Amino acid sequence: MEAAGSLGPGEPQPPGTAEGAAPMNRSGGETGSEAKSVGFVLVHAGAGYHSESKAKEYKQVCKKACQKAIEKLQAGVLAVDVVTAALIELEDSPFTNAGMGSNLNLSGDIECDASTMDGKSLNFGAVGALRGIKNPILVANKLLSEAQKGKLSAGRIPPCFLVGEGAYKWAVDHGIVPYPPDMMATKFSLSAFRKNRRKLELAEKVETEMIQTKKRREVSENTNDTASLDTVGAVVVDHEGNVAAAVSSGGLAMKHPGRVGQAAVYGCGCWAENTSGPNVYSTAVSTSGCGEHLVRTMLARECSVALQAEDAHQALLETMQKKFIRSPFLAHEDSVLGGVIVLRCCKCSLESESAINTQPLLVEFLWSHTTESMCVGYMSTQDGKAKTHISRLPPGAVAGQSLAIEGGVCRLRSPMT
Amino acid sequence: MEAAGSLGPGEPQPPGTAEGAAPMNRSGGETGSEAKSVGFVLVHAGAGYHSESKAKEYKQVCKKACQKAIEKLQAGVLAVDVVTAALIELEDSPFTNAGMGSNLNLSGDIECDASTMDGKSLNFGAVGALRGIKNPILVANKLLSEAQKGKLSAGRIPPCFLVGEGAYKWAVDHGIVPYPPDMMATKFSLSAFRKNRRKLELAEKVETEMIQTKKRREVSENTNDTASLDTVGAVVVDHEGNVAAAVSSGGLAMKHPGRVGQAAVYGCGCWAENTSGPNVYSTAVSTSGCGEHLVRTMLARECSVALQAEDAHQALLETMQKKFIRSPFLAHEDSVLGGVIVLRCCKCSLESESAINTQPLLVEFLWSHTTESMCVGYMSTQDGKAKTHISRLPPGAVAGQSLAIEGGVCRLRSPMT
Repeated sequence: MEAAGSLGPGEPQPPGTAEGAAPMNRSGGETGSEAKSVGFVLVHAGAGYHSESKAKEYKQVCKKACQKAIEKLQAGVLAVDVVTAALIELEDSPFTNAGMGSNLNLSGDIECDASTMDGKSLNFGAVGALRGIKNPILVANKLLSEAQKGKLSAGRIPPCFLVGEGAYKWAVDHGIVPYPPDMMATKFSLSAFRKNRRKLELAEKVETEMIQTKKRREVSENTNDTASLDTVGAVVVDHEGNVAAAVSSGGLAMKHPGRVGQAAVYGCGCWAENTSGPNVYSTAVSTSGCGEHLVRTMLARECSVALQAEDAHQALLETMQKKFIRSPFLAHEDSVLGGVIVLRCCKCSLESESAINTQPLLVEFLWSHTTESMCVGYMSTQDGKAKTHISRLPPGAVAGQSLAIEGGVCRLRSPMT
Repeated sequence: MEAAGSLGPGEPQPPGTAEGAAPMNRSGGETGSEAKSVGFVLVHAGAGYHSESKAKEYKQVCKKACQKAIEKLQAGVLAVDVVTAALIELEDSPFTNAGMGSNLNLSGDIECDASTMDGKSLNFGAVGALRGIKNPILVANKLLSEAQKGKLSAGRIPPCFLVGEGAYKWAVDHGIVPYPPDMMATKFSLSAFRKNRRKLELAEKVETEMIQTKKRREVSENTNDTASLDTVGAVVVDHEGNVAAAVSSGGLAMKHPGRVGQAAVYGCGCWAENTSGPNVYSTAVSTSGCGEHLVRTMLARECSVALQAEDAHQALLETMQKKFIRSPFLAHEDSVLGGVIVLRCCKCSLESESAINTQPLLVEFLWSHTTESMCVGYMSTQDGKAKTHISRLPPGAVAGQSLAIEGGVCRLRSPMT
């Protein structure tokens, strides 16, 4: 185990630079009801750009998601369902680009991607380009849990990934209440759509007037911004030590209808794997940012694999640098935009403690992003309230080329020990 | 480099057992026009069950696909477009479960998945649950090539994965001619649909009469068969040494509408990566079988990673055993059904030859499957005709629990050397 830096509770330190060490903070004290189940949750409301003026709203939604997850964890609910409960809170916020208030696509419709993975069963459920369902994560969770029941009639293998109209019908057939698609948009997302449409019309007019393709590309790149990459996600560990991860996204603004991003793609949007065989740690990861970049680098799974190394912070830093920013799969991209939240845990401790069965569950959690900012929240069952934080790139750092990385440590003592 | 077994040309030997060594065969002699570009193609018409009565048709379609690919390779076309040309032949056959004559879903519709990857650019294009397009692979190829042109207007990132209605509209907007969905079905696929529907009705009737869930599952599993897992795929190396892979599938018979299988999922249906950095070999992989199993094991990418080991045959054998049949991700599956075709190549030779720039391109190619059978075809630009073969599990081997593995070696001499 690595030695943690600052172990005192409190707000995280300012972000370290790409090469620097992250301040590590232990989450909370060991207060709270000892009779309840233990657990930990880390959520994020997107890697992108969070204006100071909306900072309060983003923190608020992260806080609500953490609190909901902790209620469930204390009641003994397992990680795979806790992570869904957290995502529902994040999807229901009009400020996030997931569920209600998602980005509109080129046709002015909302189509959502979401997926979830259970570290215990290693099952996975995903939906892509889904319309007319308020909480896409609910459908992903239902696909996962239905698949766990075994084969369908006549030996048919249950689906783990459904898209479009078929996904919608499956959801409704499985008891998920439909939601009028035109009520998914909010004032905020409609106004962003109109603004984006004007920008697009203008860009196309300007670009049409330019004959040279090269110039067109330059203009295109300069007009890009990262204002609307607010995918949401969560990672959870429960009282049994099971991990789970989930992700949900409305996708890129003005995307082509039918476009599916990393939030629905196995290994790319989320990953969760309980400890087993050579894997000392249980790991859970959720990604956010430009879907195509996150798909082609399979960032969720890459982070999970890397997190088996001794030093979690160093492993995540190197993964973000070598497997994301400088990935050979993105060699032609001059700006690689994304972020991750990760946790890993094991029955081990920072100091030498007593026998393994009385040791607390050690949870290390980190976030890292190449976007301007990322809003995170975290809480353990031992905390009185959630901590929230908007992580920002260091001053002068260029989004898409450098990164911020921060995290903390939390020890979960079972009520039995 | 491993030493090859039999190096004489001719039909492959009967399959080795799971633990046995595969017979290795060199593809063809070094005949053919020396003025034309060189290259090699390996295709398959599905891992599943190929009846003796239809063996001729399956071999015929593999032969046609190989010949089309070789024509393109000789004309100097690059691997990424050659692999698409081969797939079009495979999709157009009414006997394969891809494009024309695909399996019908629960609603009686044909929805196809396809994807392709270019080892040179590492770009990827995929479509899922696509209706009304005769050649889904054409759309995947177009997504890949459009993305290579750079960003869209206003800095929007081009999509690499489109599904459903949106994918259809994008295809038509990009010049791909639509095809009446009801003309995609053939007499053969319609008859299979009616048979499957009756089987399903009967199974549901029987299962309804059984109260115990356990019994239901047992009956379900016994009525499963692998008759219709005929996804198609191809792997290619061109005269520059670039590799490419592609896959196309109508999906499982009686699948839920909107279900997307491995053929559309990054890392799962196909993989291609030119040699670079620590990777000595260029590798290309295409998978076939039960989509959910192939997704959850990310089999295409796992094979590609493993193929960097010294002994390609041993590496593939171990991957199929440890990362597929006995994968922890499929721990609860008693039958794991799938197959792969792989190739790897490098500027090296079996014997010690002259300087590296005059060395031929050494291509090793293999196929392996846990299904009853797999129909493959292969051809180099030096061959007069394609070789085709239906690989079968050894007598007594249980499908889903054991495997067959075979392959060959081919040396491509550049017309310049």
